[in-house]
Amino acid sequence: MKRPVSFDIEKRDEKSLARAGTISTPHGDIRTPAFIAVATKATTKGLGSFMYEDMGIQGIIANAYHLYLTPGEKIVEHAGGVGKFMAWDGPTMTDSGGFQVFSLGEGFGKVVSKISIEDVPREAGVAVYDEDVATSHGKLAIVDDEGVSFTSHINGSLHRFTPERSMEIQHALGADIIFAFDECTSPAADCVYQKEAMERTHRWAKRSLAAHRQNIGANMRQAIYGIVQGGRYEDLRLQSAHELAELDFDGFGIGGSFSKQDILGILEKVNRELPEQKPRHLLGIGEPEDIFIGAAAGIDTFDCVLPTRNGRNGTVFTHTGKTNMERSEYATDLGPIDTACDCFVCKKYTKSYIHHLFRSKEMLAGVLASAHNMRFLTRLTENIRTAILEDRLSEYAREFLGGYKK
Amino acid sequence: MKRPVSFDIEKRDEKSLARAGTISTPHGDIRTPAFIAVATKATTKGLGSFMYEDMGIQGIIANAYHLYLTPGEKIVEHAGGVGKFMAWDGPTMTDSGGFQVFSLGEGFGKVVSKISIEDVPREAGVAVYDEDVATSHGKLAIVDDEGVSFTSHINGSLHRFTPERSMEIQHALGADIIFAFDECTSPAADCVYQKEAMERTHRWAKRSLAAHRQNIGANMRQAIYGIVQGGRYEDLRLQSAHELAELDFDGFGIGGSFSKQDILGILEKVNRELPEQKPRHLLGIGEPEDIFIGAAAGIDTFDCVLPTRNGRNGTVFTHTGKTNMERSEYATDLGPIDTACDCFVCKKYTKSYIHHLFRSKEMLAGVLASAHNMRFLTRLTENIRTAILEDRLSEYAREFLGGYKK
Repeated sequence: MKRPVSFDIEKRDEKSLARAGTISTPHGDIRTPAFIAVATKATTKGLGSFMYEDMGIQGIIANAYHLYLTPGEKIVEHAGGVGKFMAWDGPTMTDSGGFQVFSLGEGFGKVVSKISIEDVPREAGVAVYDEDVATSHGKLAIVDDEGVSFTSHINGSLHRFTPERSMEIQHALGADIIFAFDECTSPAADCVYQKEAMERTHRWAKRSLAAHRQNIGANMRQAIYGIVQGGRYEDLRLQSAHELAELDFDGFGIGGSFSKQDILGILEKVNRELPEQKPRHLLGIGEPEDIFIGAAAGIDTFDCVLPTRNGRNGTVFTHTGKTNMERSEYATDLGPIDTACDCFVCKKYTKSYIHHLFRSKEMLAGVLASAHNMRFLTRLTENIRTAILEDRLSEYAREFLGGYKK
Repeated sequence: MKRPVSFDIEKRDEKSLARAGTISTPHGDIRTPAFIAVATKATTKGLGSFMYEDMGIQGIIANAYHLYLTPGEKIVEHAGGVGKFMAWDGPTMTDSGGFQVFSLGEGFGKVVSKISIEDVPREAGVAVYDEDVATSHGKLAIVDDEGVSFTSHINGSLHRFTPERSMEIQHALGADIIFAFDECTSPAADCVYQKEAMERTHRWAKRSLAAHRQNIGANMRQAIYGIVQGGRYEDLRLQSAHELAELDFDGFGIGGSFSKQDILGILEKVNRELPEQKPRHLLGIGEPEDIFIGAAAGIDTFDCVLPTRNGRNGTVFTHTGKTNMERSEYATDLGPIDTACDCFVCKKYTKSYIHHLFRSKEMLAGVLASAHNMRFLTRLTENIRTAILEDRLSEYAREFLGGYKK
């Protein structure tokens, strides 16, 4: 069977698991390592798809949970799928919605990408992932072996996802790469529950895969990635990777971690369990220093809300570290956000102007800062790719991180 | 003396006062009639100057009151003037801040451009222009013959503008075209007060002009327009036009009306009092039907906040009239906002997608709708210009307005 998405490794780094490759999709290629823009509701916040080329965006990842709730997967399907809906010709992915079903809404996990909640209570069989959300919206996610029942973060209405239903939704959304439906556990979950959830995730992975392969139409144009789970337990993560590796997925996502410390240290070991010839996507990690760790551990694609979330609050990436555009010293600074940046914002606008826009709470402030941040991360992965191809990844990492203050 | 801004009339309409011309400024030409984009705080809200070319924007008008308060005119001057500050190479104007000083803040006049307040109380010598603003911010504008003392809408701090100070600020802001400092009276003002205010405005016009001409540097690179006042009284408006016409202004603004009904009916008479060879700018009027009235009455340039203000609340212009993108019928509509539009939004995005963005309260919604609206109005004035040049303005007006539901 000719797969809709293929992966070619062009070059392997000699000192790490890093590789440079090309993911070929029905909507074009992704040169890896690559940063995939998060377009949860089929929009990268203030950044329209008309700006993607300028920002070097190669692909987007939308979310099945959000698009199922609004506008509904049928509307997106009617428009010709998520890419056409948002007027983006290039490669697309959809996350299965597992994380969102369990985390219940976007108010969750604001600090570090989507992996920030800590010490959230969990009772057997009933995961309440965010006290605030649960209180303000009365939200719950009730897991059983068949699937999960949950309430909408928008209006509290009751819904149910199963692996089969998630596939049906993702088939309607029509992205080039879709993800298996997984259970995302609380960071407070103990090892016993985590193992139980992981095993359920593996059963759901098989059911997702079967539901996808049975749909010949979708199977011919959409690839499916399995998601490695196991929370913060190394042995479970390795077991999860090992078991999923046996399945007929087109690639793998590594996700469901609520703290990047849980996952970054064992990423290399996890990736060693996964088939080398298949692409690997690290969900929700986007700090520059973490992208270096991920790339060296053999990650091919990354996604994260950081560029737009940071951008909206004025935090911008520069080659010397992050800073906030509201700082008084920028009021009269006629330089660009980052002297080393090639983005249209840095070519055109001064810190003085962007500072004024943030101080005046002007809408354009977030647009410009987000656009810069997005380009900063797509360019970082472009540079990592070039460094791999030129056999100087560790030198480039040293050079970049030497000047970058975390 | 070679003036920094000149105006050439290329063609006069035979049936009306309409004319097509070119305003030449140190930063390029404005082909008239033209719609000038409002960039109050040196930003057209969600629309960056990087999008201006696509939207057919020929010039912007910023505001001396707002830029004086934040970031301060010195900061804009340090950046090289308002155009450079906002990274816009083309022609620029600054309004003197008269209207804003008296209307006290942007919460004012939300309904129709900046000319919507009605029946606002005024006591002798103390104009309190907006009950809400006055109550919530404790704001006042106290007029004397020398100038006006007022409190900031941002923090209530006390400030004072005189014609000379307004010129000084506008010289620092450095726009190609600046406006004389005027007193903008309450729509509830009686004829006696209105006449007194008009006469003061004329004295201020002479002082503005003198202060501008004395500054040789600014005088060589900035043109100055006088502002016709007179409120809703036809005799005062005509007297104002007649008296200002005698002064050595480079052009004229017609402003200070709080209801477009006050001004549109007498616009032709007002313009007949003004020198034919000088350009005329109508402040704060932007509805398509009013642009036709203005153009036929001999107006060369228009400005209005409508495209972005409407855009942010989902109201879009189409060739059949205005509509709101949140209407349910658009949920599955795969057509563009306006089938007759040539803007990048209409080329790329569907009503279905834009409807989804508005329903989801996504930032991109307002950006796309504002961009479309801006192009709709710049194109309308382009079409009016072409119609004048081709001797078919009245036919074009009939054709456009015949299909356009107000």
